[in-house]
Amino acid sequence: MYRTYNCGSLRINHVGQEVILSGWVQATREFGGLTFVDLRDRYGITQLVFNEEQNATLSDLAKSLGREFVIKAQGKVRERSNKNPNRATGDIEIEVDQLEIINASKVPPFTIEDESDGGDDLRMKYRYLDMRRNPVREKILFRSQVAYEVRSYLVKHDFVEIETPCLIKSTPEGARDFVVPSRMNPGQFYALPQSPQTFKQILMVAGFDRYFQIVKCFRDEDLRADRQPEFTQIDCEMAFVTQDEILTTFEGLTKHLFREILSLEMEDFPRMTYDNAITQYGSDKPDVRFDMTFKDFTKAAQGHGFQVFDHSEIILGIVVPGLAEQYSNKDINALTDWVKRPQIGAKGLVYIKWNHDGSIKSSIGKFYSDETLTQWAEQCGASKGDLILILSGETDSTRKQLGELRLEMGKRLGLLDPKDFKPLWVVDFPLLEWDEESGRFHAMHHPFTSPKASDVSKMLNGDHETMKQLRADAYDLVINGVEIGGGSIRIHDRALQERNFKLLGFTPEEAERQFGFLMGAFEYGAPPHGGIAFGFDRLCAVMKGSTSIRDFIAFPKNNMGRDMMIDAPSEIDTTQLKELSLRLMKE
Amino acid sequence: MYRTYNCGSLRINHVGQEVILSGWVQATREFGGLTFVDLRDRYGITQLVFNEEQNATLSDLAKSLGREFVIKAQGKVRERSNKNPNRATGDIEIEVDQLEIINASKVPPFTIEDESDGGDDLRMKYRYLDMRRNPVREKILFRSQVAYEVRSYLVKHDFVEIETPCLIKSTPEGARDFVVPSRMNPGQFYALPQSPQTFKQILMVAGFDRYFQIVKCFRDEDLRADRQPEFTQIDCEMAFVTQDEILTTFEGLTKHLFREILSLEMEDFPRMTYDNAITQYGSDKPDVRFDMTFKDFTKAAQGHGFQVFDHSEIILGIVVPGLAEQYSNKDINALTDWVKRPQIGAKGLVYIKWNHDGSIKSSIGKFYSDETLTQWAEQCGASKGDLILILSGETDSTRKQLGELRLEMGKRLGLLDPKDFKPLWVVDFPLLEWDEESGRFHAMHHPFTSPKASDVSKMLNGDHETMKQLRADAYDLVINGVEIGGGSIRIHDRALQERNFKLLGFTPEEAERQFGFLMGAFEYGAPPHGGIAFGFDRLCAVMKGSTSIRDFIAFPKNNMGRDMMIDAPSEIDTTQLKELSLRLMKE
Repeated sequence: MYRTYNCGSLRINHVGQEVILSGWVQATREFGGLTFVDLRDRYGITQLVFNEEQNATLSDLAKSLGREFVIKAQGKVRERSNKNPNRATGDIEIEVDQLEIINASKVPPFTIEDESDGGDDLRMKYRYLDMRRNPVREKILFRSQVAYEVRSYLVKHDFVEIETPCLIKSTPEGARDFVVPSRMNPGQFYALPQSPQTFKQILMVAGFDRYFQIVKCFRDEDLRADRQPEFTQIDCEMAFVTQDEILTTFEGLTKHLFREILSLEMEDFPRMTYDNAITQYGSDKPDVRFDMTFKDFTKAAQGHGFQVFDHSEIILGIVVPGLAEQYSNKDINALTDWVKRPQIGAKGLVYIKWNHDGSIKSSIGKFYSDETLTQWAEQCGASKGDLILILSGETDSTRKQLGELRLEMGKRLGLLDPKDFKPLWVVDFPLLEWDEESGRFHAMHHPFTSPKASDVSKMLNGDHETMKQLRADAYDLVINGVEIGGGSIRIHDRALQERNFKLLGFTPEEAERQFGFLMGAFEYGAPPHGGIAFGFDRLCAVMKGSTSIRDFIAFPKNNMGRDMMIDAPSEIDTTQLKELSLRLMKE
Repeated sequence: MYRTYNCGSLRINHVGQEVILSGWVQATREFGGLTFVDLRDRYGITQLVFNEEQNATLSDLAKSLGREFVIKAQGKVRERSNKNPNRATGDIEIEVDQLEIINASKVPPFTIEDESDGGDDLRMKYRYLDMRRNPVREKILFRSQVAYEVRSYLVKHDFVEIETPCLIKSTPEGARDFVVPSRMNPGQFYALPQSPQTFKQILMVAGFDRYFQIVKCFRDEDLRADRQPEFTQIDCEMAFVTQDEILTTFEGLTKHLFREILSLEMEDFPRMTYDNAITQYGSDKPDVRFDMTFKDFTKAAQGHGFQVFDHSEIILGIVVPGLAEQYSNKDINALTDWVKRPQIGAKGLVYIKWNHDGSIKSSIGKFYSDETLTQWAEQCGASKGDLILILSGETDSTRKQLGELRLEMGKRLGLLDPKDFKPLWVVDFPLLEWDEESGRFHAMHHPFTSPKASDVSKMLNGDHETMKQLRADAYDLVINGVEIGGGSIRIHDRALQERNFKLLGFTPEEAERQFGFLMGAFEYGAPPHGGIAFGFDRLCAVMKGSTSIRDFIAFPKNNMGRDMMIDAPSEIDTTQLKELSLRLMKE
């Protein structure tokens, strides 16, 4: 037997007991004739003590222990004279009478502390050491807890967890698939699922009524920071359901998670239309922890001889509270450089300072009188002392740029508290998005999303322009500006699904080859249905107030899609290739 | 809103309520001026009734409904005059006043009944219809329930669910990997995991102490009946643990599942050594629902002039109770043919009938006196009226053949009650298995299994013959002759792991390239650890008393690895191939 207790469980009431503990040596300290060893495991740290006078051999063995050695210690629990209130086991220590080194350890290549001195690559290569650090371990444990609570809630609400297959069919739509050559069917390939979308719809047609799955999905994309080729979704679908019932159910799930895991009681989530999100925040995932919504100056500002504004499609501003006098010319210049960076792409930045004394200072003072600018400030709800920042240009890009500027100003003002959770439903997304470049429509959510019931006949019979107006019962759950989940009511009618594929540029043959099984299923009594999928990695990160998902994944891959620890991907045998009827192309 | 209740929830106390139900038309019946519709969903069936006199239009609409139409009905709950005690909702019916056809259905290609007229291929192609049938739906729901209870138990016992990656490294050891070409790393491949074995060991080194995962695994094998290229494991690992603690923990899990799901209280599981299983049952997964253990006649039978026995390495028999007079010569001949089939491969079958009157009839009566044969019968514990069946030949194959014969006789005697659950731990497996053909050792469990502590020095220093004697703390959980799970205590020491790889025929370079990360991890404080993996699909099948796993999988593949519904695998675009730096070989 390696232990009778773990390293986090002993308390003052255990004093006097003979116990066995096993774990890792976190640290050793010598003090007078005493040697102290902090013994660590997943559950905590317990102090072992060795007395040189009482047992010199044992004490010498204790002194010989290196960091991360695995040991087993037997001894008596006693009260500490010098208690540590920051540690759950801080009232006691173990007076060791037997010690065994189970496994030695080389000196770790970085420190196993909350703040490690290890670089990213080193930490990934020695992931097993990295995961011994509190911050990483806590995130992995947190993720496990979230998964468990997700299941508790959903099972209580009649959802059935059903596994959908990993070896499915490749479809050229959407992101790039990972493919898997089939040995038994030479020249043919499976694909790994980007999501179980069609399968969960099939499960609704099959009558399972409420489905969920915490499921691995795969996307062969060029990896940006914080994207992983394999990621995890909480995937859900319901039949005989309206959008409102879906939002209620998953608002309930979200509240449950925050309540059970973070002990936070959330108020009802506000709902905002996609149009409002775009016009007021310049984003379909607005961060509503702070206000600073867009003010439209287009009407007021045009026709006064300022060419830049006169040639702009739109002129939008935000009111930044209290910065009028705090921001120097130098600050404004730096901010102008910031918005002109290629990542943002604005051409310039107009400011109006409404000072506390009522005076106005502005980069467009030459074109507008102080009275006019004061009037603007008043009309857009500013107070004296506020700074107004204005961007202008083409509508979509101006909104996007100002959205970024708004977030930046929120950050600078310290308004982005990661522990202040502000959830929001964004609803009424457009069904289709016109892409000038390819000259075709793209599905805003995905090709299985239904137009709103009131838009169905418009979709079946309308002209090209009408298609741009179609709205869907599609929704995103946004928390603190991060899209946590998204879903929609789906099409459950063959004719409507065919129409949608046609609008998306599929030939009837392509639609049939790729999704014939789904359209076929719609002909055998398909119920109305809809659902949602949560990005599980991101949900965990947002709940923990973290901006990166990487440490919530036990074994993440780097930006080249490599697992640094096992060194994958790697070359395979030519016999393996031959069995798969494949040959490598010469580079 | 589509419904205020589901089709399984209304009872006598709801009488008088106005309700809305949605679901599928299971059947319609006309009777006098009344039309009855059985409305079905996942939760049950509710009877709708339409009265021609009261509303002829509505009644006509009801008559027009086809099987599997999706409808929404509103009406009042009333008490049935003719109650159906076999149905949970059988006390009530709905007097419908509003009816809406939500979606029509073509006539299904097979009947949606417990016993369907659909063949396998048709059922797989229209899996969404097949899953509407009670037996299939119940199995999928059952699986979901088992998964939930597995998690409940394990989380309560401090296990953490941690996701391991799906895109890992290909290793030529063991079964064939499915591989995934990496676009970003041309010429390189990921492999899909055959199990998360090395990752769960790494998690133990990382200090997670108790890990589990219900996880998809992949094996590119030629598919026999009831094998799937993707299958699901309950994968578990524990640190600082002895074999006994592992067995106790997972015996607890198994008991928990049977208790919570089947309301069955199980007694403590017996443990049997591998050697005993082989010598008494001719199998490492004995079905202990019935006795009929092997009796050894080698000593008694040799040297009496019967050449067949005299040239046999071993002579083994089983006592089949009560069949002496029931089995005619014809029956015995048929049984002899049965054991001579190539699947069994015996050369012949010897019988001894000990009749109720004490007389002996035997196929070897020429060589042995009745007294001798009566003595054999008495010594091996037979009673008058029993039939003794004897096989002889080379030891291993004779045991195997008799094991098969034993199962067959158990089946014929009706002793294989699927509701009679007889679990068994088989323990003390050999560490290595000598393979004559390849002239090397194979790992009996897998290359990470540790020899028993008492065998470690033998393994490090012993000769070739000693290696065959090594025993491991490796164990299988067997229920009713089906291997449900298996595991072992692992190696946690680099030198021992290197020695094992060497015995298994790895060069040091191969071992390093494939498993260097794991051996490296052992040098940084690896704790002793061990675990187990359950075949989840098979566990569900055994618990439900089913011999096939296929219907416990929502979307199974056929014997050619094809998904008949979505028609995968399939060809992919040449551009996709080109991006992957691959070319198809001409056949």
